[in-house]
Parts: sequence; C-alpha cells; structure tokens
Amino acid sequence: MEAVRNLQVILKDYVNGFPKESYMLLKTSIIPLKLPQDSNGVLVKNLYLSCDPYLCLLMSKGQVGYLESFTPGSPITGFGVAKVVDSGHSNFKKGDLVWGLTGWEEYTIITTPQTLFKIQDTDVPLSYYTGILGMPGMTAYYGFYEICAPKKGEYVFVSSASGAVGQLVGQFAKLTGCYVVGTAGTNEKVELLKNKFGYDEAFNYKEEQDLDAALKRYFPEGIDIYFENVGGKMLEAVLLNMRVNGRISACGMISQYNLNQEEGVRNLSSIIMKRLHMKGFIVSDHFNLLPKYMEMVIPLIKEGKICYIEDIVEGLESAPAALVGLFSGKNVGKQVVLVARE
Amino acid sequence: MEAVRNLQVILKDYVNGFPKESYMLLKTSIIPLKLPQDSNGVLVKNLYLSCDPYLCLLMSKGQVGYLESFTPGSPITGFGVAKVVDSGHSNFKKGDLVWGLTGWEEYTIITTPQTLFKIQDTDVPLSYYTGILGMPGMTAYYGFYEICAPKKGEYVFVSSASGAVGQLVGQFAKLTGCYVVGTAGTNEKVELLKNKFGYDEAFNYKEEQDLDAALKRYFPEGIDIYFENVGGKMLEAVLLNMRVNGRISACGMISQYNLNQEEGVRNLSSIIMKRLHMKGFIVSDHFNLLPKYMEMVIPLIKEGKICYIEDIVEGLESAPAALVGLFSGKNVGKQVVLVARE
Repeated sequence: MEAVRNLQVILKDYVNGFPKESYMLLKTSIIPLKLPQDSNGVLVKNLYLSCDPYLCLLMSKGQVGYLESFTPGSPITGFGVAKVVDSGHSNFKKGDLVWGLTGWEEYTIITTPQTLFKIQDTDVPLSYYTGILGMPGMTAYYGFYEICAPKKGEYVFVSSASGAVGQLVGQFAKLTGCYVVGTAGTNEKVELLKNKFGYDEAFNYKEEQDLDAALKRYFPEGIDIYFENVGGKMLEAVLLNMRVNGRISACGMISQYNLNQEEGVRNLSSIIMKRLHMKGFIVSDHFNLLPKYMEMVIPLIKEGKICYIEDIVEGLESAPAALVGLFSGKNVGKQVVLVARE
Repeated sequence: MEAVRNLQVILKDYVNGFPKESYMLLKTSIIPLKLPQDSNGVLVKNLYLSCDPYLCLLMSKGQVGYLESFTPGSPITGFGVAKVVDSGHSNFKKGDLVWGLTGWEEYTIITTPQTLFKIQDTDVPLSYYTGILGMPGMTAYYGFYEICAPKKGEYVFVSSASGAVGQLVGQFAKLTGCYVVGTAGTNEKVELLKNKFGYDEAFNYKEEQDLDAALKRYFPEGIDIYFENVGGKMLEAVLLNMRVNGRISACGMISQYNLNQEEGVRNLSSIIMKRLHMKGFIVSDHFNLLPKYMEMVIPLIKEGKICYIEDIVEGLESAPAALVGLFSGKNVGKQVVLVARE
C-alpha cells in the first residue's frame, strides 16, 4: 500500500490570550493512501485551507458554544477544499472535489463525511469554496438577508468590511439598494472598499479619535443595519447611532477573541430604547440554505456583478502565520492557504 | 363654570444622574371643570398614577428612543387610571373610566385621547390598570410570550422578579410549565417570589459575591430565557450562563438608568457562540394585542390563578418619593400612587 509524507499543523497545548505562531508546530507523519477495509470515512488530499478567527478560540480548553476545543498534539481542524483519494462512504468517490471540515495537514481521514459538501461547479476558482462559495459566503448571506431583512434605501454599516465576510455584505447591500459604509484598519483596505466593492463611503477606524463622531459623520440619519464582525468599542459606538427598529447581525467579535477578559460594552440600553433586534448565529446551523445561496451567487460571480478578493499564501508551512495575521489585519481579503494544487 | 384646585407634580428643570425627590416640586393651580367649547380632548380626574423607572429617563434633556423629554415647569406625564369629567371626543363620555397617558396632577386635559383605553371590566381593582391590566402587564405578556416563545420545561430567569413586570413573568412561566428562578434585592421579596408568585427558586442578589456562581447554582443546565429588567453586571453574568439558542427579552435596564455613563457589559461574544436572540421593545408599540391579553389574563385573575402585588401610596404629595424609591427597590410589588378615590 502506498504511503506518503503528511505534513501537519499541530496545536502544541491549550493556550489563552492573543494567538501566536508558537502555539502551533509543524510535524511530519506518514499516512497510507488507502482507508482501512471497514472504514466508512473519506480520505482526502487537502488543496486549500481557510483561515478563520474562530479557530483561535478553539485553542483554549473547554467548549465554545457547541464547538469542542482542538486536541493538543493533533492537527487543527477547519474548513477547506479537498480532493477525495479514497472513500468508504457511498456519497463520495475517488476524484470528487469537496469542501467542509478537514484537517490542517496534507491528507486527512474524515470520519464524519456528513460535514462535507460535494463541489458541483468548477467554473470558478476552487479556493472560492473556502470563501464566497463556502462558510464566509453563507455567513454573509444568512446574516444579511435572513437576520437583517434589508430593505432598499436602508443605512447599512459593516465592520471588518474588506474581510472574508464583510466584502460580501457590502456588495449584497449595494445589490439590495442600500446605502452602505464600511470600516477597515488600513488606508489600502479603505480604498478597496470604495473602488472595488462599491461601498458608498469607507473609513479607517484606526485614524478616528472618536468612533461615535465618525459614525455620526457617515450616518447623520443613523444606522438601520449593523453587520457585527468586531465587538468592543465599535459596537459601543454603533449602539449610540442605531435607528429605531434597527437590526444587528452578530457573526463575529474579533476584537474580543483571546482577550483574557472581554472589554465591557456600554450603551446596551439602546437595545431597549431603540427596540433593536440583535441576533447571534453560527452559520453551520443554516447550511440547508446552501443550494438557495448558490443559485443566487454563482450567476452573480459569472456575470461579474460581484467580486471576491483573496489573500492566498502557499504551503502549510505558512499557515500558522496566516492565521495569526488575521488578528492584526495583515490579510487583505479572505485569507486562504494553498496546500496543494489538484 | 366650576373651577377647582389642581395639585401638580412639576419637573423643575432638566436633570442628570440618580433621581432625587428635589427634582420635582408640588404646585397648585386652578382648573375649570369644563373643556373649552371647541376642544376635542378629554378632561379627566386622575385616580391612580403608575410609578415607572422610565419616567426618570425623561427628566433629562433630549430624546429617549422615540419618547420626548418632559418639559420643565410642566407636570410629569405617565400612565394612570382616570375618570372622564368632560369630553370633546366621541369615543369618551362623562363618567367613563379610562387608562393611558395622563398628567401627574389631580385633573388633566388630555389632548391626544388616542392614547386612552376605556376600562370595560370593573370587577377587578381599578389600580390594576396601572399594573397587571395595563402597561406592565402587557410588557410581561409581550416580552415573555411573543419575544421569548417559551416552551414547557425551559429554564427561565427573571431579574427585578417581584416588580411590576417580573412578578407576572414568573407566574406566566409557571403557567407555561417552565422552571423559573427570580432575583430581588431584599429577603422579604425573595420570600414573596417563592411563597406568593410560585418561583421554583429565588435569591437576593445583594447577598451574592459572585453572580456567575449564583446562577450556576440555580441553573446547572443553563438559562433558556432571560427576562431582562436590570442590565449591567447581572446581564454580564447571565450571558455566561445562557444556553444555546437562548432568548433575552430586554424591557428595562434599571441599574443603568441615570448613570452618567453606563457600565460596560462583558461577555457579549456569548451572543454569537450561543446563537442568542436579544430583542428590545417598547410595549406601547404592541398595544394592539391588548384585547388578546385581556382575554387571557382577566379569567386567570378571577379564578385566582394569578395574583398581583401592589405598593400603593396615598396622595400626590407622596408621588415624588414613590418614584425615586423604585431606584433603591423600596417598593414591594407594583408602585402606584392613589390620587383620588372615584
């Protein structure tokens, strides 16, 4: 039986606090390219891995919502695109392209193939299945359309606006006929927001002394919809500027992850006074909507009505730095690791 | 034309910070007991006035949500029960009993009679129309049933649990077959919760060093529904103890009103991790459900299946102290001011 080298990104131990590359190590093991006889799992060759902030939450001991922490000594697991090498499951056969939960390594035996989706459309870059056509895309779709129920002419604010999710929310908002403002942490990203993604306005939050004043400048009438990706002081300022019956879709609070103690957020009484609706969600609960979303978004991509920017690094060796870089905003667009070409 | 003395509770000036009696003064004016010829308003004699925390928010300059601040030099306005003395409006006639927005004074000319509801059922204490049959009752009903959509067997936590709204939420939760725990600020109130309102458990939050530990004691499985009346540190501890898909109905944050700056609330990332739904509301938006609520609650009262505790002080002179007393929890049950007997 053929056996090959399997480079892996391993979590060393449970950690707390701001993520560091040193929390992970690279290890080489050997893996046979065939499943055991009685396996009903799927053996895949990983092609692309998705760097997502939530992964760093799972490096701490305990549970995060319903997600279990990673196991020290084992590879990190996350979303990725892969090719089936061997299958013990009737839904998949050798050569199939799939996306879903896989390991941060070259080859993975996936024992829960129900978390895999078969890739039907290969007319688009395969890496898109870690982004616009994968978990971040569904996050933008569910959070914006289903939770916020946007109407034409409404005022929309997006934080982390050029990120994996934010760049899509901004474009969905424009397609819906909303006025949309985004914020990001570099002037390069602010330019992207305005020139590439079609945001009506954009600003660099690091250059604002007073976030409340900045929001009042861009939203003199207030904000109907806030797509929350960061938490903390930004949320505090947004609450002051929400309009009556506003909606907040909470899909991430990257500024608060891995702090030993979260920052306190003031102005929550706005939730009552302005009758706000705030809803957190975990997108994997809503993957049943995937076919509906694909039907909408694939034509938009092919007609050039929506674009998607990726920041692709090559090689598993680069994965730890790429993941940690999310927390300082190093990435421009969706952060992806290219593990292997088909 | 007969004219009478009209004792009034006047807001002296715009104020900030913790409410004080000295912010209000008593003033006597004279009022004719007849409306001007062409008025389409309603002249009422006030019988009961409702003391509600939100009134103190309206003593500051500016707007609170869609509510306008009070006008310095004029009487405070709030919910009350009154008898029609003269009417220029076809929906009301002399002798009718009504509840709705009126003035903190003996007689009021109500120029917006669309904010009045005619009292149909007088088999119950009239003061109930400031409480269980009025705004607080609708608050408990809408917040618990409509926002939280409770299911039998769910775990419910209520803060300010013996107050105007909380005592009803606890009883509604028991009628629904939930497990319900309440918290209040005196041992006397804790006894009421357990012995009068049927809470499964209750505790005095002032005697707890660690609110998170207290909640873990009473909710080892976590909280499905939190009826939020206080905000601040209690909300922070509750967020740590919510279950996946939990619901938070935010109808008040008394601990935060009239602070110059709100306390920061940590643990908001639980909203995402646990997929929480948090919804603020202003009950007057939902008064269309009043007939449905009356149909449910009046039989419960008459059959003794629900009870309501009021703290009634006599005389408008006592109104400022009664209102301010809410903020130190002096009241036991719904705080009402008896202005005049029919």
